[in-house]
Amino acid sequence: MKIGVLGTGMVGVTISNKLLEKSHSVKMGSRTSENEKAIEWLLGAEKNASAGTFEDAAKFGELLIVCTKGENTVEALQQAGTENLKGKIILDVSNPLDFSQGSPAFLIPTLSNTNSVGEEVQKAFPDAKIVKTLNTMWCGIMVNPASLGAGEHNVFMSGNDAEAKLMAKKFLNVNFDWKPDNIIDLGDITTSRGTEAFLPLWLRIWGAIGTGAFNIKIVK
Amino acid sequence: MKIGVLGTGMVGVTISNKLLEKSHSVKMGSRTSENEKAIEWLLGAEKNASAGTFEDAAKFGELLIVCTKGENTVEALQQAGTENLKGKIILDVSNPLDFSQGSPAFLIPTLSNTNSVGEEVQKAFPDAKIVKTLNTMWCGIMVNPASLGAGEHNVFMSGNDAEAKLMAKKFLNVNFDWKPDNIIDLGDITTSRGTEAFLPLWLRIWGAIGTGAFNIKIVK
Repeated sequence: MKIGVLGTGMVGVTISNKLLEKSHSVKMGSRTSENEKAIEWLLGAEKNASAGTFEDAAKFGELLIVCTKGENTVEALQQAGTENLKGKIILDVSNPLDFSQGSPAFLIPTLSNTNSVGEEVQKAFPDAKIVKTLNTMWCGIMVNPASLGAGEHNVFMSGNDAEAKLMAKKFLNVNFDWKPDNIIDLGDITTSRGTEAFLPLWLRIWGAIGTGAFNIKIVK
Repeated sequence: MKIGVLGTGMVGVTISNKLLEKSHSVKMGSRTSENEKAIEWLLGAEKNASAGTFEDAAKFGELLIVCTKGENTVEALQQAGTENLKGKIILDVSNPLDFSQGSPAFLIPTLSNTNSVGEEVQKAFPDAKIVKTLNTMWCGIMVNPASLGAGEHNVFMSGNDAEAKLMAKKFLNVNFDWKPDNIIDLGDITTSRGTEAFLPLWLRIWGAIGTGAFNIKIVK
């Protein structure tokens, strides 16, 4: 499958490499076509890897994954071009964290509590199918849940399109080995408010246990 | 031990009953001494139960537990009287949820993100030892963690006083059967921001799985 990954940070690189391993073709997109991190990634990447602008990646991908900072997600997709998003499933992994005052970060007020990045993206691109997912954990766990507790922990999903969520569930299962029973569909895109709001606790847990290599399991 | 429980809602009642079972003496406090819910509780409660104002409960208790709504926590403790809190450990179970727009609730902006109820309480009563804990789950689980997954899930703790947190840990272990290894000390009282911010996700998970009888386990 042709996949466009928007964002050249650690999350984008980790997801892209895993998808290449699974024999997908990946184009990594960034603000400019000469992004240093994208070039560095390309040099070390397997075949079927390419890089370009957000627009190039969006045109290329049959499915898109946004791994930008939450404050930049809508803008990155605007640069990608509304016409290149139409009808496509977009996995939104971004979080509205503000690190400007140092760590631990807080949430950007206009993008949290009674709003979320997921909702803003869906509002800005009503013809795209936004599925918020994977945003509650460190990227190493996103693509390799089996590395912790035999994969018995949870990932959440929020989105308005039921079919897109089913496809996303299958995508997480086939490519990253998430067990279907461990993928929790929280409901429509407004439930992104919940998962994005988990980050402040996530950062504190990281601080307390000394590693980001953890996840939460719902015990019931 | 003599324990003052502030708040007559479901959380206050559940905690009070469990403490009576464990042979503690409990005085439940509320805004007025003739609180209907407190009287209803007294009628069904075991011996060693009594009720009164917030002030009565605070005077009575060697340890206090605040189970009010987060927006009322500081005010309830002001009514309890600063001199009655001095040097005491106060377990703060409250959350800054606003249900005024219906459910799911959101967080009160002035009491969340870059602030928390825990911090406000500690600032208002610097001579009391605030330990934020138990606020990330349904009250049935607070007092009976073994009812889920053999008790193998987590409760968090935030506070500035290390000794008070050790005492609180022992209290949770002895009275509610929380296993010490499952009690995670997140750090100082500012880490309340993290646990209080979990509520929006908690409410969405409840909505998705159809029960509040769940908790999270950190898998690492």
